[in-house]
Amino acid sequence: MVDGRANLMTAAWCGIASSKPPAISVAIRGERHTLKGIRAHTEFSINVPSADMVDLVDFCGIYSGRKTDKSAVFDLFFGGLKHAPLVASCPVNLECRLRHMIDLGAHILVVGEVFQTHVNESCLTGGKPDATRVDPLIYSPGTGNYHRLGEVVGMAFSIGKKRKGGQ
Amino acid sequence: MVDGRANLMTAAWCGIASSKPPAISVAIRGERHTLKGIRAHTEFSINVPSADMVDLVDFCGIYSGRKTDKSAVFDLFFGGLKHAPLVASCPVNLECRLRHMIDLGAHILVVGEVFQTHVNESCLTGGKPDATRVDPLIYSPGTGNYHRLGEVVGMAFSIGKKRKGGQ
Repeated sequence: MVDGRANLMTAAWCGIASSKPPAISVAIRGERHTLKGIRAHTEFSINVPSADMVDLVDFCGIYSGRKTDKSAVFDLFFGGLKHAPLVASCPVNLECRLRHMIDLGAHILVVGEVFQTHVNESCLTGGKPDATRVDPLIYSPGTGNYHRLGEVVGMAFSIGKKRKGGQ
Repeated sequence: MVDGRANLMTAAWCGIASSKPPAISVAIRGERHTLKGIRAHTEFSINVPSADMVDLVDFCGIYSGRKTDKSAVFDLFFGGLKHAPLVASCPVNLECRLRHMIDLGAHILVVGEVFQTHVNESCLTGGKPDATRVDPLIYSPGTGNYHRLGEVVGMAFSIGKKRKGGQ
């Protein structure tokens, strides 16, 4: 929320920051309109778009909330936090409380603790988020291309066991 | 480098933290052997593996450097930093200088400034890293699956322009 209005920015530089409590990082350029709302309310949301949302996601990255009202681009809903609207069509939504803002130069690294996570039921396998079902949109800065997630190439903590002892 | 030996850990929770100066974040559990070396030398490297390296990458994630010498799993080389060995077979290598360590509970968020970047020439398109050529290994915690990057679904700052004015 910025100046009483829901604002949406496209952020590619997001990372998982911790597991317990769950935390997430997102790098935001210092001049971005979105930072004003995060500073004012110490709340924000991270919404993971699916690959088929690429045009609207890119739209939100091209136009700033300073000049363009993006509050009606997506249907929004609220969870437990009053100032962190969530995007209904995104398969994964994280409500976050601000914990750290680290000034790194061009970008501020915003670290939030995840207050609540919403996952579309159709994206769960055995009760856990399944990346293949989420079909997340992935951005590659080098080429400027958006990609989707590709095929499974192995299972973690399993495929490496046969290599015990090195090569 | 930990206790005079090259150590390799598998880290999935890595994010871009800033562009200028370039910086990167990586979440590392507080008890990890790797943190000892980062604290001692204030240098480390991030090496992006390709999908076909999945078994050796998983191997490095299963066995701790405390008990297993992983220094011979990959051919290593050095760039400009004396305590940040780089993995020759990884298409992208980042030499980093430690800037911040943020204690978030289970994980320490390590933020490094990128001192130098090495990219395999075969992974460049027009002089820039091309994610399709890098073919990065991607990890999904929910299912425990490793994936490769998928197909291109659009071009950034382009595909969203036709949506001007919203839906």
